[in-house]
Amino acid sequence: QCSLDSVVNKRIQEALKEYKPSIPTKTLSCVSITSSGRLSSCPAGMVVTGCACGYACGSWDVRGTTTCHCQCSVIDWTTARCCHLA
Amino acid sequence: QCSLDSVVNKRIQEALKEYKPSIPTKTLSCVSITSSGRLSSCPAGMVVTGCACGYACGSWDVRGTTTCHCQCSVIDWTTARCCHLA
Amino acid sequence: QCSLDSVVNKRIQEALKEYKPSIPTKTLSCVSITSSGRLSSCPAGMVVTGCACGYACGSWDVRGTTTCHCQCSVIDWTTARCCHLA
Repeated sequence: QCSLDSVVNKRIQEALKEYKPSIPTKTLSCVSITSSGRLSSCPAGMVVTGCACGYACGSWDVRGTTTCHCQCSVIDWTTARCCHLA
Repeated sequence: QCSLDSVVNKRIQEALKEYKPSIPTKTLSCVSITSSGRLSSCPAGMVVTGCACGYACGSWDVRGTTTCHCQCSVIDWTTARCCHLA
Repeated sequence: QCSLDSVVNKRIQEALKEYKPSIPTKTLSCVSITSSGRLSSCPAGMVVTGCACGYACGSWDVRGTTTCHCQCSVIDWTTARCCHLA
């Protein structure tokens, strides 16, 4: 019995050393979501990495993790740059 | 001995074919770090994906990989949008 | 034969329970690519997470997934913030 064990264990360890599990490779994927007005939100599962605003405005903040808010007094559109791992 | 080997190897290969290693799934996670003045830095382990500036300024650069620098002549606050895999 | 199978299978399952495949840990990596004019593109394999523009302009869009376009009437430089998993 014990020689069987050691043979089996040795084979298993050898097999595991060569074994390369197929690991799904993920990449970073991003889209822009543009809405009129001063708010724009990412689709579910995506988060804001940056925002763009109309009227040359560079002052923005992110509400929650998915909504761009453009702060300038006059804003006609807002774009959320949204990313996730896909 | 050789029949033992072939039985063992066959079982091992079958087991490895069905084997699904539990792989930790990572997601993209981001936060905003706002500071007064024209510099704002990300926490350790996070990198800048975008910056926002006060006074509607859209001209910025990134120093190192973690610090937003707002370039306009008058800047009251700077926000770094910081992301990492979590 | 059947006792051999059960011993082998049992050993294999035990080995697989303890087996920790070495999974490459990826991190988020970003760079800034600055060009004169109103367009700036990311290197192959990277995507835009945000853009900065000259003349304080905060109005930009992303063409394809890799090119920042600054929209204001006068633009002297454009920066694409480019990220990928490395």
